[in-house]
Amino acid sequence: MGENANEVPQEEEEDQIVNPFQVTVKKGEKIDYDKLIDKFGCQRLDPSFVERVERVTSRPPHVFLRRGVFFAHRDFNEILDAYERGENFYLYTGRGPSSEALHLGHLVPFMFTKYLQDAFKVPLVIQLTDDEKCMWKNLSVEESQRLARENAKDIIACGFDVTRTFIFSDFDYVGGAFYKNMVKVAKCVTFNKVVGIFGFTPEDHIGKISFPPVQAVPSFPSSFPHLFSGKDDLRCLIPCAIDQDPYFRMTRDVAPRIGYQKPALIESSFFPALQGETGKMSASDPNSAIYVTDSAKDIKKKVNNHAFSGGQDSIEKHRELGANLEVDIPFKYLTFFLDDDDEVEHIRKEYGSGRMLTGEVKQKLIQVLTELVERHRKARAAVTEEMVDVFMAVRPLPNMFG
Amino acid sequence: MGENANEVPQEEEEDQIVNPFQVTVKKGEKIDYDKLIDKFGCQRLDPSFVERVERVTSRPPHVFLRRGVFFAHRDFNEILDAYERGENFYLYTGRGPSSEALHLGHLVPFMFTKYLQDAFKVPLVIQLTDDEKCMWKNLSVEESQRLARENAKDIIACGFDVTRTFIFSDFDYVGGAFYKNMVKVAKCVTFNKVVGIFGFTPEDHIGKISFPPVQAVPSFPSSFPHLFSGKDDLRCLIPCAIDQDPYFRMTRDVAPRIGYQKPALIESSFFPALQGETGKMSASDPNSAIYVTDSAKDIKKKVNNHAFSGGQDSIEKHRELGANLEVDIPFKYLTFFLDDDDEVEHIRKEYGSGRMLTGEVKQKLIQVLTELVERHRKARAAVTEEMVDVFMAVRPLPNMFG
Repeated sequence: MGENANEVPQEEEEDQIVNPFQVTVKKGEKIDYDKLIDKFGCQRLDPSFVERVERVTSRPPHVFLRRGVFFAHRDFNEILDAYERGENFYLYTGRGPSSEALHLGHLVPFMFTKYLQDAFKVPLVIQLTDDEKCMWKNLSVEESQRLARENAKDIIACGFDVTRTFIFSDFDYVGGAFYKNMVKVAKCVTFNKVVGIFGFTPEDHIGKISFPPVQAVPSFPSSFPHLFSGKDDLRCLIPCAIDQDPYFRMTRDVAPRIGYQKPALIESSFFPALQGETGKMSASDPNSAIYVTDSAKDIKKKVNNHAFSGGQDSIEKHRELGANLEVDIPFKYLTFFLDDDDEVEHIRKEYGSGRMLTGEVKQKLIQVLTELVERHRKARAAVTEEMVDVFMAVRPLPNMFG
Repeated sequence: MGENANEVPQEEEEDQIVNPFQVTVKKGEKIDYDKLIDKFGCQRLDPSFVERVERVTSRPPHVFLRRGVFFAHRDFNEILDAYERGENFYLYTGRGPSSEALHLGHLVPFMFTKYLQDAFKVPLVIQLTDDEKCMWKNLSVEESQRLARENAKDIIACGFDVTRTFIFSDFDYVGGAFYKNMVKVAKCVTFNKVVGIFGFTPEDHIGKISFPPVQAVPSFPSSFPHLFSGKDDLRCLIPCAIDQDPYFRMTRDVAPRIGYQKPALIESSFFPALQGETGKMSASDPNSAIYVTDSAKDIKKKVNNHAFSGGQDSIEKHRELGANLEVDIPFKYLTFFLDDDDEVEHIRKEYGSGRMLTGEVKQKLIQVLTELVERHRKARAAVTEEMVDVFMAVRPLPNMFG
């Protein structure tokens, strides 16, 4: 059984459904990431990787690595092996531009990708799937493209190196070598196969059925002749949330059949909703997420009123039993965004034992998020239209390696 | 019932199957074009159109119009109405480049399109579906593109006006405005719909399922911003063989839903194989067709040895009963390529009554075809790589109308 073994429509038999279009678990249950790793056939990113990355890059591993936010991978070891042999690779990540403003969950892959770019000094392509959102969200072409450009500003604000980063919109960039690769991939994937991988039905429009190759081909360097001409064997590493795994399972299945290298992946769990960890945050419920456009007042209100607490009902009970850190959202959020390991450990002990109260933890979280969002707001305000044009220009990146 | 009423898979119930991928009739039977018109829901091109086209264009109608080779249409009357009001339109035709050399059947739509371009003085876009042939014929991307360019030379040799003609390969041109229109179309067509129209199955690869929008969108002027910017309401007229009708039935169904004009069509019957009129010619049997690369000797041999004769078994019987012109291929071919109406009428009478023998008719056909092929060979030899580059350059055509 290869990595594509489990391609029956997930709805029929599974308690949890995780694909690019849907993340659902049984009511009241959390996502079982171990089960997901088994089902998808990827590997757990064990702690030895954290040490190895630190050694290879000579810099502290990112908080998302240390805390296990990125918890699964495919062939990440091969990328590291090759890197240690002096071989290069490139990074590929992306975003479906379906909303005006990003929430913190949207930032997770980009913050991590920026770290990877800085640590490994490698080029990066960022795909904005405006075509996908036009089709799935029934947005007009123009609105999807407008959102793609707005989202590009938030992405640029994460601090990517313009000498190593190419951001592209599908509506702008599909064509030429990219389209040729789309056709090569499409030839290798039957309708039955995409039904198995993505849960499509015969009532779905053919735009959806046509889309998987579009997200597949940035995995191949030949899709970017202005960047990687003559480097057809360059490996690609994709940092993404694990719900995107189906696209790349398909891509990895096809790659050797068309003479290409399989992309490697490093995959994150989902950033939980304020209401609790039962899936991804929902763009349709503004109180389920902290947005990068939220004011300090918004953040304070959302954390205080909506962040699900694992603290006990009464102070007495809390002092006695301590907080349930497994379900506590303020603590969970701090593990994502509070970089100081000692402080996180301190809170874990104090809050978990009941010596610290929910209010204190929320206070800390409000402070951390307010700083983060304020930092992002300033960085985004500094992103000019000209900078967007430069990042999105089809141009060579002569010093993209090292 | 609209024009899309009859979209059940044709295999289940029909004696004849006609779609872009398959033209089959029951053994020994001819294609029933009247049935096809009813089934597809297009209109018969009655003789009044021939007169009207002659009047409107002030030039003799093309032999393919006079002899009923182009026999069906959709909204061609509207194109003529608009043209008489002083409104412009553009022509769109195409070719799937699956073979090195074209046969006479391949030339039919191009010869007719050249006449339409000359008569109406309108711009023309010619799509080379190298992506389609890469997927259906399992050719490499490179080989499909090479064939597209070779076929472009044969097309240019038909005499198109370079100031009014844009030839494009899908692998080169898909992208930008063209891709945006592909997505708009794809959003409106379900998998079930393409199963009904084209007979696709769940075992077909998603490249096939993705393709219909590629052939649909040249029907919309906004797919060619370098030609038709600001002319979003320009009507499109598509000369093609009737097996392409399913693509444009789909296109016409979608057009109003995305705010576009429906393309009009003028549709030909199939040029019969040398062995007899039971479908299209087959590229896989070289003796079934006359190729533009055939020598005078080849033509003579093929006509004499392989052209199905409607003449009687013995001279006595032939003198008595005359030739069966309904099945006689030499006579049929002459109705396509012998322009002189009087001469065709003479042969019809003399051969049909038995006074003329098959040998004489074949002799005449050999002469006509040898001249035609020799003319084409010379024209093609004069087509330089530079001319191909010019025809295929993405460029404005400032004097494309009138």
